[in-house]
Amino acid sequence: MNQGAVLIAAEPLKKFATDILTAAGMPPDDAENEAEVLVWANLRGVDSHGVMRINLYMKDIDSGLMNPKPEIKVLKETPATIFVEADHAFGAVVTTFAMERVIEKARKLGIAWGLIRNNTHQGALGYYAWMAAKQGLIGVVAVASGPNTAPFGAKTMGVSNNPIAFSLPTASYNPVVFDMATSVVARGKLRLALENSQPIPEGWAIDKNGNPTTDPSNAEALLPAGGAKGSGLSFVIECMASVLAGAPIVAPVLKGRRSTENLQNSFVMAVDIATFGDVDEYGKNVDEFINCFADLPPAEGFSKVMAPGMPEWAIWEERSKNGIPIAEGTARNLRAVASRFGVPLPVEMR
Amino acid sequence: MNQGAVLIAAEPLKKFATDILTAAGMPPDDAENEAEVLVWANLRGVDSHGVMRINLYMKDIDSGLMNPKPEIKVLKETPATIFVEADHAFGAVVTTFAMERVIEKARKLGIAWGLIRNNTHQGALGYYAWMAAKQGLIGVVAVASGPNTAPFGAKTMGVSNNPIAFSLPTASYNPVVFDMATSVVARGKLRLALENSQPIPEGWAIDKNGNPTTDPSNAEALLPAGGAKGSGLSFVIECMASVLAGAPIVAPVLKGRRSTENLQNSFVMAVDIATFGDVDEYGKNVDEFINCFADLPPAEGFSKVMAPGMPEWAIWEERSKNGIPIAEGTARNLRAVASRFGVPLPVEMR
Repeated sequence: MNQGAVLIAAEPLKKFATDILTAAGMPPDDAENEAEVLVWANLRGVDSHGVMRINLYMKDIDSGLMNPKPEIKVLKETPATIFVEADHAFGAVVTTFAMERVIEKARKLGIAWGLIRNNTHQGALGYYAWMAAKQGLIGVVAVASGPNTAPFGAKTMGVSNNPIAFSLPTASYNPVVFDMATSVVARGKLRLALENSQPIPEGWAIDKNGNPTTDPSNAEALLPAGGAKGSGLSFVIECMASVLAGAPIVAPVLKGRRSTENLQNSFVMAVDIATFGDVDEYGKNVDEFINCFADLPPAEGFSKVMAPGMPEWAIWEERSKNGIPIAEGTARNLRAVASRFGVPLPVEMR
Repeated sequence: MNQGAVLIAAEPLKKFATDILTAAGMPPDDAENEAEVLVWANLRGVDSHGVMRINLYMKDIDSGLMNPKPEIKVLKETPATIFVEADHAFGAVVTTFAMERVIEKARKLGIAWGLIRNNTHQGALGYYAWMAAKQGLIGVVAVASGPNTAPFGAKTMGVSNNPIAFSLPTASYNPVVFDMATSVVARGKLRLALENSQPIPEGWAIDKNGNPTTDPSNAEALLPAGGAKGSGLSFVIECMASVLAGAPIVAPVLKGRRSTENLQNSFVMAVDIATFGDVDEYGKNVDEFINCFADLPPAEGFSKVMAPGMPEWAIWEERSKNGIPIAEGTARNLRAVASRFGVPLPVEMR
């Protein structure tokens, strides 16, 4: 834990986040939902998508980008799909809305697809995929936003690094939650290096001249994971989310017709396992695959091989028991926001 | 074109392939379908998935693995899904069957999903995704087979390198066809290096002790693209195809309960664009994104930036005009197969 960090249990942290979000204008149920997703990320060790976002979200409410009281509208609907206008909703609010309906539809038909237009920062995507897996369905979620990554063979940005998440039911483990960005590293890692004045490895990013850089302050564009693979996946996700929603982002930004403001589009999908076979058997087979990973001999530099998402569940266990460390800077920002809205601080942060 | 290669136009090559497959026991329509997919791969320059496979397929018919007259059965069906038992069918036969029905369902409901159990080598996956894109739908296809790739952090194989393909409708271009394997390179590239006694770059594969190797004959396991990303995607695809079909492959092979025989499971998916918006507008927006790529400044070592799958369409144009080069070894094998079945050779191959 960093110098100056405080440890807070998940429940009081969730309560605190809910109180701030409510005070900032969100209906209490929506605030609780958003707080739940933020603290879920903290519990899994993904602090870049945890309560540190609250301070940024407050600025986005002030600027009018994020809408604490959106009019979420179902634009189109079939028994297997739903197309939702988010009206700048918080990510958790509209994505939970869409995924709940998609799960319901998938239970009846085996598969369902939700398309979300004009949402804002979505937080930890894995959460929404996990919603499906907890109920015996496979969940998939992906998001499309503005360009930040150089396509394969280019020396300037031309795709987003579209995060995508999958979740799979298990029998005795926590559901598999696998999420990835299509860039070599997520932007959060660059931000962290920048904050700590640390160099970044070559291969993460290029500078404004298209040359490799190890200085995060010169990083202009991320590089795609696996070269043509990461950049091809990005192309496809933009076209399966933003373009499908009639709201392309990357090309209009590159053409100068649209700003890189933080609006996003995304899709959520669920596949119902019971439509094809036995859910318990499915879970046992996924468990066996997880166990196979643990049995593999580790490569040099690794102490064990873990199935996707398992390292984060290990952090979850630890933090559920010992509390969530809130870094000094985050705690300072949260105290300021709490003071602004007159929300009482958890005892640990006082 | 290699020394000793012959050039054949697509149509006579397709006719020749159809004749051989028919003589080998396939119903003429199925043979034509399979030949179409093989020659499609050749036209796009993916010769590893073209007519060179015919010789291997003949061996797989002889051994009983590939069934030229399968009883394809629909095991389960909803208005949005279909679950198909392939009965060891040729890839094109059962995948075309499933994708046609999935397209029909997706037209009505916006999304549909097909699950295929016990198919054999599927050929160029992009073909089946392209079937959807040609008709105004987004197509997705993925396949799960036996382990050949080391998961992130492991020094032996533990996942397949699951190929996945996407296709997107356009307005004035050929549909975008993007396909990838989850390993750094596909197995075909190792096979090619081996055949040509060339070293492979470090980072493609590891040897039986888990050490990096540049000798393709020592390559025991492929390495995953993007480390944890490629290996996570592989985990997920195995669970969305084989495990969902009640026919897991990787874990049972690792546990020694199942051989690595060439049976596979796969899924196909289609998303209907008209359900969400205007198909023409969609195509124009994808075109603009393609154009944006072409406008990006190329990185060092690249002459231009191309959208995914576009290099293969350039080869298609060229080969459609000038013919498909058939390498000497492939031609020799095809002559032998033709002679075995008494099928006349195209004039160019005589």
